[in-house]
Parts: sequence; C-alpha cells; structure tokens
Amino acid sequence: MAIPYPHFIATEKAAMDAGLLLPSSPSVILTQDDLKKIAAYKAVEYVESGMVLGLGTGSTAKHAVDRIGELLHQGKLKDIVGIPTSKKTHEQALSLGIPLSDLNSHPVVDLAIDGADEVDPFLNLVKGRGGSLLREKMVESACKKFIVIVDESKLVKYLGGSGLAMPVEVIQFSWRFTAERLRRLFEDAGCVAKLRTFGEKEEPFVTDNGNFIVDLYFDRSIGDLKAASEAILHLAGVVEHGMFLDMATAVIVAGELGLTMKIK
Amino acid sequence: MAIPYPHFIATEKAAMDAGLLLPSSPSVILTQDDLKKIAAYKAVEYVESGMVLGLGTGSTAKHAVDRIGELLHQGKLKDIVGIPTSKKTHEQALSLGIPLSDLNSHPVVDLAIDGADEVDPFLNLVKGRGGSLLREKMVESACKKFIVIVDESKLVKYLGGSGLAMPVEVIQFSWRFTAERLRRLFEDAGCVAKLRTFGEKEEPFVTDNGNFIVDLYFDRSIGDLKAASEAILHLAGVVEHGMFLDMATAVIVAGELGLTMKIK
Repeated sequence: MAIPYPHFIATEKAAMDAGLLLPSSPSVILTQDDLKKIAAYKAVEYVESGMVLGLGTGSTAKHAVDRIGELLHQGKLKDIVGIPTSKKTHEQALSLGIPLSDLNSHPVVDLAIDGADEVDPFLNLVKGRGGSLLREKMVESACKKFIVIVDESKLVKYLGGSGLAMPVEVIQFSWRFTAERLRRLFEDAGCVAKLRTFGEKEEPFVTDNGNFIVDLYFDRSIGDLKAASEAILHLAGVVEHGMFLDMATAVIVAGELGLTMKIK
Repeated sequence: MAIPYPHFIATEKAAMDAGLLLPSSPSVILTQDDLKKIAAYKAVEYVESGMVLGLGTGSTAKHAVDRIGELLHQGKLKDIVGIPTSKKTHEQALSLGIPLSDLNSHPVVDLAIDGADEVDPFLNLVKGRGGSLLREKMVESACKKFIVIVDESKLVKYLGGSGLAMPVEVIQFSWRFTAERLRRLFEDAGCVAKLRTFGEKEEPFVTDNGNFIVDLYFDRSIGDLKAASEAILHLAGVVEHGMFLDMATAVIVAGELGLTMKIK
C-alpha cells in the first residue's frame, strides 16, 4: 500500500468525495458522524479489486462497509471477499451483497479497515467499546495491512487517557473474581473494574462468543503496555483485552482542520 | 501444610487406609484406578475442618471428592466449603452433600486437590484432557496450596513427553485458523493440532464455557515453557491452555512401589 504524502488532506475535498459537501457550499459544520464518514471513505480508497478484506465493526467502520458495498454495485470494485469482525457487520455486509467468507477459508487478509476507541501517539489502540474486540483482533492480526479510521476525538496521549473504558472479555464463570484480579493488577493506576451491562434492567452484556465484558477505567497511565497485556492474558478467566498493540499500519484521522494519516 | 518426611510412604499402609487391602492379605495386584484412589485418599489427609476447598475434576480427583463427602458424613470433617472446577464435579459434590460456593463468594481457596495428565520433574503440569482446564486453572490459581494426585504413569521428563494431548481451549469462531496458528507456533517440535471431538459422529467437544478444545501433540520438547505459554495466550482466539506452570505445591504419586510426595 502506498502511503500518500503529504499526510494532510484538505477536509473540503474529502467531504465532497464523501458526498457531504457541494462544491458551491461556502462553509459547512461537520458533525462527528460526518468526520467518521470522511475517514471511512478515505480508507476505502486503498481497497483494490481482488482483495480479501477485514470488515470492521462500529459506527465509523459501518461507513466503510457501506462504501465498499456501493463501489461493488457501481462495478468500481470486483472480486472482493469480506471477513466480518462481528455478527452485526456480517448482517450489514450480507444486506449490501458483499461476498463473505471467514478466517478458516481465508487465513490471510489483505487489508482490514476498522475504527478504534483510542489511538495513542505510537498507533497503539483501544478497541472493543462496541463489544467485538475478540473477533476484530483475530481478523486484524491476520492482516497484511490494517487501516484504522477515527475522528480526532479518539486521539489520546496514553491508552486509557480518555477516561473511558478499556474492555476485557472474560468468561462468565466467576467473572467477579476475574474482575477483582484485573482491578488489582492496575491498582497503582487507580483502576476501577465494572461489568458491562445494557438496558434499563442492567443485564450483563454478552459478546458474540458468549462471554462478558469487564470495563477497566484508569486514573493514570498503566505504564508498559506490553507488560500490561501479558499480565492480563495470563489471568485464567480472561479471553482477550481491547489493547491492540503494534497492529495498525496507518491511522486516518478526520478533524475539523482536515484529514491526517498517521503512520509509523 | 506440614509436608511429611520421609516422602516415601508404604503402599500397603496407604492401600489399607483406602480400604483396598485387608491387613491379612499376603499380596495384592493394584489396578491403575486403585493407585488413583490411594493417591486421592492420601491427599485428603491434608484437608482440615473449616477449609475452603478446590474440588478437582477427572477420574483421580473424583476419588478425593468422594472421600471428602465420606469424612463429612462421618463427622470427621466440618464446615467445609467446596469450589467445584467443573459442572460434573459440581453435580458429584452436590449429590454427596458437600456445601458448595464459588470464587465470587470465596476468592481465596485454602487447598485444592486435583489430578493431572502429565507431571514434569519441576512439578509443571499438563491438565485438561478431561476438558475442564479453564475452571481448574481459575480455582487452582486462587489456592494457597495445590496438591496434585496422580498414578506413576503420569510422570514425564518434559511436558508433552507422554505423546498425549496438550489441550488448548479456543473460541469456536474461526477455530481452524487458531488451530493452524497454534500448530505453526510449535512447528519445530513437530506439532500436530487436532480439534477434540466425541462420539461416533465426531462432533466437536464443547467445554463448560461453550468453547472448543484444540489438542496439540508434539514429537519433541517445546523448550521454554514460560515462553510457550505466553506465545499461546498471545493468540487472539485462545482462551486458555493446559500447561499449569509453577502452580503445584506438592504432587502425590501412587505407584506399585509405594506413595511418593514430590515437593519443590
């Protein structure tokens, strides 16, 4: 994949490409969803006919999947095989007529496009606030290239720095015990661990794999991310965590001042 | 827990304790199941009233659970709380009237007693041929003391050395992909990876947690066990593996020539 220089791309042009702005509009106020769509459309420019594609999950990735479906129908893309990262994306891609497969049949993925909840300066990510971290990680660790698409609100100085959740997928059995062990791992960072729930009745959220999510919140940086990753994975009862370390090839950031592509 | 010296205990006395041999019997041929029972009964001698106990799973641990139930009924043990390591052991303990709880309510376990499929000279274990490795590992990593009970056929020079399976619990999603990644990790050890099946129709075996088991077979030693453990856990799609490293406090081995307690 050729990385374009300069990495700064005018928002106006990109917004037009994404159908958000007419050439004659003097100015426009872009919503967060507009920015997500702009980043998504830009990423899809890297898709080529014949590729095996990892299809991400979430409000930003959804725009990319929509766009891929559109280009297929317009005949501008051909022979695409999509590998969805969640049941939800599977359904979306199916409804768009994107041919689908899985990692069993296509263990090598040419390109994955997906959103992220946090991006640090080294392109490490937090993902999984949508609950699909495990399948996403499986597909995205099988990729030759992984383009992350975010709006600028997702940039953080350090993972956990947004004050929002760092999710950990755990088995249902004795989840309280696992949550407490997770909390204690990061006691020095002021960690709070909460079971993810949904709805008014606050029922536990269940992942596509039948597991629970424990959301970790930090007051301070957790320090060495690789060490943190290993400590989390070492706990029996943990299935996977939402830190995606050293996996992104590039991050496309859409902001009010334009599109930026961050590369390593 | 006091460790008895010498570590060699006459089989005859132990067999009598386990009700397998009358004092007057001139000689006896002990079956493998007799040896399992002898080891199990010996381990239960370390159980004290008031303890929170991890109850193991499998043909050897079953004898220990039976014995604990018996001692409770005889009034020789009181105020025991059992934490079962599988649905099967849960049912067995329930039928024996052993009061049960879980790790959520009892995050600290005084003593666990469980079998193993392999024991190496450093008391590292392979467990999980019975399919309960994950819950066993959760309970046994919460223990102050963990006594392993085996017959002598389980002793190996290195883990995997029996030529039998080293199990890995994986999520069902794209399990073939995960199995192939596992096989490749240990290609140098001549690794073969097989999905565990059961019955004539060879349907996939499903764990208590709704996952599959991929059994790994090695031609040669896999070398550094800690590195192997981390490499396995690092794969998205892997839930847990059957190597129990540095967890056993003591291993009671029942053999034709007597009972041995191996300690570190």
